[in-house]
Amino acid sequence: MLEELKEKVWEANMFLPKYALITFTWGNVSGIDRCRGLVIIKPSGVAYEHMRPEDMVVVDLEGTVVEGKWKPSSDTPTHLELYKNFSGIGGVVHTHSRWATTFAQAGLEIPPLGTTHSDYFYGAIPCTRTMTSEEINGEYEKETGKVIIETFRDLDPQTIPAVVVHSHGPFTWGDTPQKAVEHAVVLEECAGMAWQDLLVSNNTVRPIQKELLDRHYLRKHGQNAYYGQTV
Amino acid sequence: MLEELKEKVWEANMFLPKYALITFTWGNVSGIDRCRGLVIIKPSGVAYEHMRPEDMVVVDLEGTVVEGKWKPSSDTPTHLELYKNFSGIGGVVHTHSRWATTFAQAGLEIPPLGTTHSDYFYGAIPCTRTMTSEEINGEYEKETGKVIIETFRDLDPQTIPAVVVHSHGPFTWGDTPQKAVEHAVVLEECAGMAWQDLLVSNNTVRPIQKELLDRHYLRKHGQNAYYGQTV
Amino acid sequence: MLEELKEKVWEANMFLPKYALITFTWGNVSGIDRCRGLVIIKPSGVAYEHMRPEDMVVVDLEGTVVEGKWKPSSDTPTHLELYKNFSGIGGVVHTHSRWATTFAQAGLEIPPLGTTHSDYFYGAIPCTRTMTSEEINGEYEKETGKVIIETFRDLDPQTIPAVVVHSHGPFTWGDTPQKAVEHAVVLEECAGMAWQDLLVSNNTVRPIQKELLDRHYLRKHGQNAYYGQTV
Amino acid sequence: MLEELKEKVWEANMFLPKYALITFTWGNVSGIDRCRGLVIIKPSGVAYEHMRPEDMVVVDLEGTVVEGKWKPSSDTPTHLELYKNFSGIGGVVHTHSRWATTFAQAGLEIPPLGTTHSDYFYGAIPCTRTMTSEEINGEYEKETGKVIIETFRDLDPQTIPAVVVHSHGPFTWGDTPQKAVEHAVVLEECAGMAWQDLLVSNNTVRPIQKELLDRHYLRKHGQNAYYGQTV
Repeated sequence: MLEELKEKVWEANMFLPKYALITFTWGNVSGIDRCRGLVIIKPSGVAYEHMRPEDMVVVDLEGTVVEGKWKPSSDTPTHLELYKNFSGIGGVVHTHSRWATTFAQAGLEIPPLGTTHSDYFYGAIPCTRTMTSEEINGEYEKETGKVIIETFRDLDPQTIPAVVVHSHGPFTWGDTPQKAVEHAVVLEECAGMAWQDLLVSNNTVRPIQKELLDRHYLRKHGQNAYYGQTV
Repeated sequence: MLEELKEKVWEANMFLPKYALITFTWGNVSGIDRCRGLVIIKPSGVAYEHMRPEDMVVVDLEGTVVEGKWKPSSDTPTHLELYKNFSGIGGVVHTHSRWATTFAQAGLEIPPLGTTHSDYFYGAIPCTRTMTSEEINGEYEKETGKVIIETFRDLDPQTIPAVVVHSHGPFTWGDTPQKAVEHAVVLEECAGMAWQDLLVSNNTVRPIQKELLDRHYLRKHGQNAYYGQTV
Repeated sequence: MLEELKEKVWEANMFLPKYALITFTWGNVSGIDRCRGLVIIKPSGVAYEHMRPEDMVVVDLEGTVVEGKWKPSSDTPTHLELYKNFSGIGGVVHTHSRWATTFAQAGLEIPPLGTTHSDYFYGAIPCTRTMTSEEINGEYEKETGKVIIETFRDLDPQTIPAVVVHSHGPFTWGDTPQKAVEHAVVLEECAGMAWQDLLVSNNTVRPIQKELLDRHYLRKHGQNAYYGQTV
Repeated sequence: MLEELKEKVWEANMFLPKYALITFTWGNVSGIDRCRGLVIIKPSGVAYEHMRPEDMVVVDLEGTVVEGKWKPSSDTPTHLELYKNFSGIGGVVHTHSRWATTFAQAGLEIPPLGTTHSDYFYGAIPCTRTMTSEEINGEYEKETGKVIIETFRDLDPQTIPAVVVHSHGPFTWGDTPQKAVEHAVVLEECAGMAWQDLLVSNNTVRPIQKELLDRHYLRKHGQNAYYGQTV
């Protein structure tokens, strides 16, 4: 069932250790089949070394396991909330990568300080608000997803495909699971650079000029994009 | 004698270079057989590259060598003190890993700033007090253990399985030698993130909300834990 | 056509991942054949793993593709501007390497703090001015090159073969593509050290003494250089 | 000639890339045969990948090449000055390793902040004074050695086998070339930790207690040392 997507989701999960985004099993990637309304996600707490495509878990949009011998990632309800509200996305990634998590723990957004950031993200990566006791003690992982959605009330998840969850860590997304991982890698790199800039400039560093942000984002993603090869 | 535990203690020691927690021979892992009251520990100053399970040293709880051709780690008396006072633990690790040691040298506890920390440690990782001249000039390694015990007077070593010894470095423990190493890896990661947070926020960063600390610690370790696979 | 130079430019591009100067495809190296007035450069957005010498693109000094199945790097007009104005150079490199980019994003020059810097660069690595809206919205990549040239009005590109472009990242150059990569590696190392020095000394660190800068630069590059082997 | 020492000096040089202490050829190790008064040192500017034991250069204590097809390291006069004045040492190392060089460039000594430092160095690692124009423009590399000797006027090079040369980088030494490399590795690790401590504590971090410094240094190096195996 959905063998091709399973393979892709598995491969995308294997990129997390490859790009040094995780320690142990702290991370998960999912992908969605929009036609069937089914999501494939990494099993909870299974070691990457031994994980195979057939270990991936298939769940429906309510989180019910449809196929798979393992329990899905405990963060599954957060992924589902994103799929339900960000209609254009095909893959979601969660990690505790060190630099992005540093911003999450400090409760700070990641400011757009240069073209590396602008090539992928069309503005600051927001940080969610702290959650209420009710949210934390209720359906916590689902509420985490809802707080992300709330954060994007006035933001476009297509042009800012990443968030840092307060006190927790980053979530990224994209058209495919692979793209979502690519965004997780770039986020980590931009977070590291931003941290270094904030420190060297005594917090007086300023965001990139709006014109330059536009130019870089649009030369890769705009209607007249001219970066890369035309397929 | 105790071949299986020797193998486990040796394997746990080999994880120290694998997870980049040590330089040269600066670290040691031990394990205990509670029935026989015997501890197996790494030999002192032997290179990891050539170390084999049969090089492990067996000592009783007073530190007398019961089997083994080498001298045990010079930190053995510290390990023994922990085994004698923390009745539930099965393994102990000592390293000079860079981030945790940075806190030890600064005489600072490692504050719980996020869920990465909360998934493993149910509060701040304490730093021991400085030792007196008498303690340093007396049975120093044993006194080091006693100062750790003193630090945990009002703390639970089961829920906070780690400490940084003032001016020295981290000790971690767990149900097994492998678990103790896992805690050493997580401690190092959390220390690195905490340091980055303290710097970016000019020391105004605040600990994670109590509710979120609870939620994350208990979803992995509480009675109704739901993280990972049920065995 | 220009097979030998293609091979060299390809090899120099492959050094970028080897020396950990890039993430994904974020970087490019070019080389010039001064007699024919042709430049060879990396194709845009092609993965390094699969890139072969025959994938390199040949362009003339106006940027017209003379040979090659791919589009050239989108930064090609910047490279061309450098070749046209810095008559002595044979290779150009652009990366987003983390430390040099940190200075670019902070809008800071990289001060010459020690002999590591002085062995290669005869003074501070300048940072370009911010660009105007007209420049950004016009022929942006070409204007980037012109701003670099403007920055070197009173500097010698032979003795300071590097620049950080404001809000963007480093460009380096050299007699050959290989030399340009060497300068990119050294720049990154010096930027990292300088950042660490600026932080530990509360921004009061002072540049290296002029005499020592002279001595180190000239013992490697002066008329009576005595470093290395005489060929 | 001196084949065994050549092999050892070569091997010690190969440790520099292994322990990530150098970029390109920026570093050198030498060893001395005290009976014959001959020093073996790395050739200048030769790549590590292709270096073999027979490429090592033999010089006498005045720096005259006695054997070898290459020019010796340009830092040879500094090494010779150390051998002539520190009678007990058998090997010398020079690198531009990043953390130690950070202190050198800031003109700061590396304070003894913990037991990692105390296990190897019996006090702060000093930083030399800035050199005069006469020294820099005269026999510069020899004068560098003399400034190191001057710095150790009231220090014991046996118990503090390292120095950072102002605006330049570290030199370490030891009984053998291998020991000198070991000290270079430890110095780098201690410098990194010290830098992290200075930053997290707003420069208020205090050196380790004298009693603890004594205990750790002496349990490894004192008359009644009990660390490691007795041979």
